[in-house]
Amino acid sequence: MQQSLVLGIDIGGTNTAFGIVDHRGRILEKGSMPTVGFDTVAAYIAALRNEIMPLLDKAGRQWVTACGVGAPNANFYTGEIVQAANLPWKGTIPLAKLLQEAFHLPVKVTNDANAAALGEMMYGVAKGLKDFVVVTLGTGVGSGFVVNGALMYGHDGFAGELGHVNVVRNGRPCGCGRKGCLEMYASATGIVYTAKEWLTQRSDDSVLRQCAGEVTAKQIQEAAEAGDSLALEIMSYTGRILGETLADVVAITSPSAIIFFGGLAKAGELLLGPARSHMEQNLLHVYRNKIAFLYSDLPDADAAVLGASALAW
Amino acid sequence: MQQSLVLGIDIGGTNTAFGIVDHRGRILEKGSMPTVGFDTVAAYIAALRNEIMPLLDKAGRQWVTACGVGAPNANFYTGEIVQAANLPWKGTIPLAKLLQEAFHLPVKVTNDANAAALGEMMYGVAKGLKDFVVVTLGTGVGSGFVVNGALMYGHDGFAGELGHVNVVRNGRPCGCGRKGCLEMYASATGIVYTAKEWLTQRSDDSVLRQCAGEVTAKQIQEAAEAGDSLALEIMSYTGRILGETLADVVAITSPSAIIFFGGLAKAGELLLGPARSHMEQNLLHVYRNKIAFLYSDLPDADAAVLGASALAW
Repeated sequence: MQQSLVLGIDIGGTNTAFGIVDHRGRILEKGSMPTVGFDTVAAYIAALRNEIMPLLDKAGRQWVTACGVGAPNANFYTGEIVQAANLPWKGTIPLAKLLQEAFHLPVKVTNDANAAALGEMMYGVAKGLKDFVVVTLGTGVGSGFVVNGALMYGHDGFAGELGHVNVVRNGRPCGCGRKGCLEMYASATGIVYTAKEWLTQRSDDSVLRQCAGEVTAKQIQEAAEAGDSLALEIMSYTGRILGETLADVVAITSPSAIIFFGGLAKAGELLLGPARSHMEQNLLHVYRNKIAFLYSDLPDADAAVLGASALAW
Repeated sequence: MQQSLVLGIDIGGTNTAFGIVDHRGRILEKGSMPTVGFDTVAAYIAALRNEIMPLLDKAGRQWVTACGVGAPNANFYTGEIVQAANLPWKGTIPLAKLLQEAFHLPVKVTNDANAAALGEMMYGVAKGLKDFVVVTLGTGVGSGFVVNGALMYGHDGFAGELGHVNVVRNGRPCGCGRKGCLEMYASATGIVYTAKEWLTQRSDDSVLRQCAGEVTAKQIQEAAEAGDSLALEIMSYTGRILGETLADVVAITSPSAIIFFGGLAKAGELLLGPARSHMEQNLLHVYRNKIAFLYSDLPDADAAVLGASALAW
């Protein structure tokens, strides 16, 4: 007998990836298409349907029982995307409803960091864990909290905005309109901000000076890996702010593990070494030396689709 | 037919209160005794047994099905009290085991703030709420988080230490050995600290000057109620720090309500008005004007016992 399958869709700012996934996290069929370039949401959904329908037929439509979607600012309770800064559609989009109509499947949506947390719990390094946090360090900072084996959605579906915890009073202006949010420090955007600021204010010799005001997160990571001392100091400063914030996260939620995901997490120990050490220094005694720092081991290209699919089970 | 009953025990630093409670939160029998003055834990438990046994007989021992206990630093998972600074016993005390042997009842323990959250959910202002926080503003700051209808214990039973979130880097030294914890600002201890500091550093005319270095939290609250401007400024400063911290709590857990409890919460709007306004100012757009500030309406003398009893059901 054939196992049941689910459809996972990850909607990113640039690309949409999708796949048909079995219980063990094997992706039987997959594909992707651009998220941008459509005049309306309806046109995007129609194009998505055209891409996915052949895959559903190939895998056997009768076995596909549900659809899970990860998308920025997507709300689990309402099925809507609300004011997503990184998506081409403004206002409120009834995403679950539109996809349900397109695929005649029950659809659950959540934000990308929550989907990542579910993916790690079902197929990844969080298997068997009941209380953990996934922190996504990319362009911004996202987070998904699992509490007692289930995602913490909060009363309105918007829990887990770790990127918008305040870390510096009246600090750097954030895209959200406020100042000093974690994601203006501990993201790709944040390390670029730090690098530009320090290159202007200081006179350190650094390979980053060659980037002439157009330094990227990737260049900073590579320079740190190559031993550039300014770049290493940027990692260490970023790790300190991240670690101090994680100490507060632990005081509230007491997770057994913090799982890192996203481009900046690839800086590895250069960033997360200082983060761990500053977290430990700032922990209340009862939490010390208990919390694992883990890296996602799901394949990059598939992790988001797997996370979205985990929501469908 | 008689309803089943539970035994609730609240162990405080000075006194222990207990009661036999029905499903609707009616306390059928109650009593209290000192927590201090016993040479050993065993002597304390024996005295507690002597006090409670007659109440069990009076209410009908056969109807009492379980015992719930709230105590500082008590751990739900292990049943132990671990290094409680405010209790006379040092090290690790196997509280649940000792009480189980004394009363031949299944015993569940948790810390006092968690017990308060359960009490509010079962009998108080949090009836019907699934995602909320109880913040206790007393000598210290405690918190209990309810997530999706259940207490958030964290992986080890120690979640919810809001009092030990960092609010000022290298700030006031805290009893926990660290610096700048919320409870050194937003508690009875905290406002006394602020008052003493300001009375030394500043020259404001204030009734608090008459207290000659021995000012108490009660005096500050009364002075604020009477319109003393220094006392009002202390409340406003304290409210700002509390509100800023609560904004971060919301970004992580997105509760529908925050419920305040404890002596300092009685300052009411003088403290919680500024707290609410600073929280709102620091909230991400999606959370604004959604979160209720509530006061516990359980009778002071009984609230802790009711909270403990709620754990037993």
